[in-house]
Amino acid sequence: MLKLKVRLVDIESGGKSVALVNKDDAAELGVHTTDRVNIERDAKKQTFMVEVTKNMMRPGELGLLDNPFDNEEALDGKIVTVESAKTPSSSGYIKKRLLGTKLSSEEITEIINDVVYSRLSDIEAVFFMASCYNNEFSEEELTALAGAMVSAGRTLSFPGKDVVSKHCIGGVPGNRTTMIVVPILVAAGLTVPKTSARAISSPAGTADVMEVLCSVEHTIDKVSFIVNKVGGCIVWNGAVSLSPADDKLNQLRYPLRLDPRPFLLASILSKKKAEGAKKVLIDIPVARGGKVDNEEEGRTLASQFISLGVKLGLEVEVVLTAGDHPIGNGIGPALEAADVLMVLEGKQEAPLDLRQKAINLAGLILEMAGKAPRGEGEIMAEEILFSGRALSKFQEIVHAQGGKASVASADVSFGKHKQRILADADCTVFGFNNNQITKIARSAGAPKNKGAGIYLFVKRGTKVKKGEPFYEIYSEQKEKLDFAVAVAKEDNGIVMERSVLGIVGGAGIG
Amino acid sequence: MLKLKVRLVDIESGGKSVALVNKDDAAELGVHTTDRVNIERDAKKQTFMVEVTKNMMRPGELGLLDNPFDNEEALDGKIVTVESAKTPSSSGYIKKRLLGTKLSSEEITEIINDVVYSRLSDIEAVFFMASCYNNEFSEEELTALAGAMVSAGRTLSFPGKDVVSKHCIGGVPGNRTTMIVVPILVAAGLTVPKTSARAISSPAGTADVMEVLCSVEHTIDKVSFIVNKVGGCIVWNGAVSLSPADDKLNQLRYPLRLDPRPFLLASILSKKKAEGAKKVLIDIPVARGGKVDNEEEGRTLASQFISLGVKLGLEVEVVLTAGDHPIGNGIGPALEAADVLMVLEGKQEAPLDLRQKAINLAGLILEMAGKAPRGEGEIMAEEILFSGRALSKFQEIVHAQGGKASVASADVSFGKHKQRILADADCTVFGFNNNQITKIARSAGAPKNKGAGIYLFVKRGTKVKKGEPFYEIYSEQKEKLDFAVAVAKEDNGIVMERSVLGIVGGAGIG
Repeated sequence: MLKLKVRLVDIESGGKSVALVNKDDAAELGVHTTDRVNIERDAKKQTFMVEVTKNMMRPGELGLLDNPFDNEEALDGKIVTVESAKTPSSSGYIKKRLLGTKLSSEEITEIINDVVYSRLSDIEAVFFMASCYNNEFSEEELTALAGAMVSAGRTLSFPGKDVVSKHCIGGVPGNRTTMIVVPILVAAGLTVPKTSARAISSPAGTADVMEVLCSVEHTIDKVSFIVNKVGGCIVWNGAVSLSPADDKLNQLRYPLRLDPRPFLLASILSKKKAEGAKKVLIDIPVARGGKVDNEEEGRTLASQFISLGVKLGLEVEVVLTAGDHPIGNGIGPALEAADVLMVLEGKQEAPLDLRQKAINLAGLILEMAGKAPRGEGEIMAEEILFSGRALSKFQEIVHAQGGKASVASADVSFGKHKQRILADADCTVFGFNNNQITKIARSAGAPKNKGAGIYLFVKRGTKVKKGEPFYEIYSEQKEKLDFAVAVAKEDNGIVMERSVLGIVGGAGIG
Repeated sequence: MLKLKVRLVDIESGGKSVALVNKDDAAELGVHTTDRVNIERDAKKQTFMVEVTKNMMRPGELGLLDNPFDNEEALDGKIVTVESAKTPSSSGYIKKRLLGTKLSSEEITEIINDVVYSRLSDIEAVFFMASCYNNEFSEEELTALAGAMVSAGRTLSFPGKDVVSKHCIGGVPGNRTTMIVVPILVAAGLTVPKTSARAISSPAGTADVMEVLCSVEHTIDKVSFIVNKVGGCIVWNGAVSLSPADDKLNQLRYPLRLDPRPFLLASILSKKKAEGAKKVLIDIPVARGGKVDNEEEGRTLASQFISLGVKLGLEVEVVLTAGDHPIGNGIGPALEAADVLMVLEGKQEAPLDLRQKAINLAGLILEMAGKAPRGEGEIMAEEILFSGRALSKFQEIVHAQGGKASVASADVSFGKHKQRILADADCTVFGFNNNQITKIARSAGAPKNKGAGIYLFVKRGTKVKKGEPFYEIYSEQKEKLDFAVAVAKEDNGIVMERSVLGIVGGAGIG
């Protein structure tokens, strides 16, 4: 036990309780980096993760970040009592799981809580995630994982309402169905408190696209108010923090772009549960080399979603969709927002594939919710769309989230720098390399620059003559446009039929 | 690409190249925390790991820790070019390995190099270590791992000399054989450049005990000089940094106290290889519930050491020893140093078990090195010890490492506060709870306070009368003594025969 003098340090803790200790004091306390200490002041005790420093802290000093003791007087310069603290039991559970033992629901719950309250280090949390690769999660463990993620966050609730939701596991550029499906469902009398992601490695997430038209960062109380008022919303999930455990674990699987199955399932369904949804449609795009490689893998994943749903009290249906080409014409926040609005407005130029996919998905949910008989959901969705009721509802939602009252596609503007990428010979478009299309759009500035991205003139099967455009790149800055054009000239992301004929075996295509 | 103004930040990087970036600039660059950026200045380019900050860095600022560009003029306030950098290929190899694929030697080597030069994040390195639990290391992978650990650090070399070494995988309090074995071997004409650890969770490591008598922190060049002069050394491995890869990975397995087998094997033998040793004896203490639980496990581990040794060009022999009770009477740096010196001095009070174990180990190495015929090594070791030549050689080593010229056990002093722990009834000592003995010694201040620890009056089988002492606790501070005594009164760490008789089945004892 030591008495140390607090020095507040201007470092962001990222929500972690970190104590910086000089190496001599650390030796005296018998602690190393990632060990824990209890710090006591005025009979209040709190646990911190130790970071041993050589020079930054002098002996006798204790570095604390932000102001860890809430609502307390200034701590800087005060003397506190520091002693070595026990490692939480959850650390032992993680080791046990990594070495092959299944855990109880209580143990899983304790791990998730300790992750949320930073009582476990990142290193320990990574070992927990990694354990699923050698020791498959049992149904009990998976259910506990999802349940603990729900309990660790706040939840929405709309008593007496038919609450539904949807989720797409992603990986398809332009695929902005949510912004069409939600207003159709709400217009049909359903309640849809939809929370969506921002892009991580794609040109745009639904939250980025919606943000072109209105704010997507609302507190959970504001979200509740909006949904009660207009029947639905489309907001950024990061601002409502329905599942802080999931938010933390996602950061840790990001560097390797890992999608460990139990964490994927628990992450998605825990957020749907926290939205207050009772019925959920999951869209799984299937594409060779994509997140889900083939139909069999898709079916397995689908059955896992359905059975976890049962455990959580969610009625889940799953649809496998084609994920090997972009949906819609626009790729990038503003370009996708314009696509969505044109579909809602019933415009001639609206992309047919986006409209059709949105109608399919909305139709299925209308059937799940009992609004339409089985087999007739699409007709109902189409009617709501054509009648303009979906557009009105969408405009209400945008307005409730702080956007313009009667938003229209004409309001959306794109980056003023643009350049077309042309065919250098007559050809037929066989398909798209989604990763390359994504790279070009991101090089142009998406998703940070809302007006940046790609507008496609071609679909699979389109015949193109030499000199005709495949697509147009938009950018808000000349340099970024030049960079994106250079990337596109390296590889334009279009797979042509003639190139297929030229490759024996055609490996990697389709 | 962005131009940002450098702000040097007073944070210890721990050897990592970290770039602190404001969230707006990060979005502009399209990077997230744990992504990488290239920073260029005056045509020099270096890669940094991104840490996104909300407020700590203002937009336009780039926070760098320490001075990352070596030998350069002051960077603070200078403008540098920052752009998003590719993830190193090694990150992909780790993902591949975690998902079940074996890696090539080249891939393993690249991972280890990227760990050493901080091109991989801690998160990625943890996933690499965790991958060994679901995807066993092949012989090729294990060999590459150990080889890469050697190549990534500096190595010692003593041409024309018979270089030998030893290593104990640990877990036994008081077991300080190295300080007796090394001088016996050197006195016999062998070269022993021994590097040893400090305690992490034990009351003392060999480096901590040696440090009671002389400095153990020497540069690799100094170590080379000492060994060439006197034939051997006993120094702290952390100061010579023979295997920086291993040092980094050890930090990551510390929080869960993990001993992933391939990393344990590669860690130990890579250090022996880097010492320049040709022949190595490994001591594996076996104890129920210890690092190695039973003889079978010990034999498996032994064969792995031997076959990895062959791959690395090391002749390895392994001895399984009893690990269920302390060796020697003293536990704690000064108390163990006194034990060692008394054995070397041939004192009546010297602990017999420590002397016998040291003679056994030294004898085996003398036989391996061809200094004694098989079966006669112990006799030779005993002669060298009894003749006083081992003591003289030890004194030479201590002196060469900056200690007193003719160090003796009488020079060693213990903590001035002490208290005996007494038997509360007549009994026979059945055994020891090593973990509890360790806890008591550490509570008294070991290893930080050199004079703190325990002096045992009893061994297994000792008959003790009520009121006679089991051991004496030493401490440099009264409060620590009181604390250690309180811990000992909770559980004194002694297992008595009468308590065995009282427990049906005797679970957990022996």
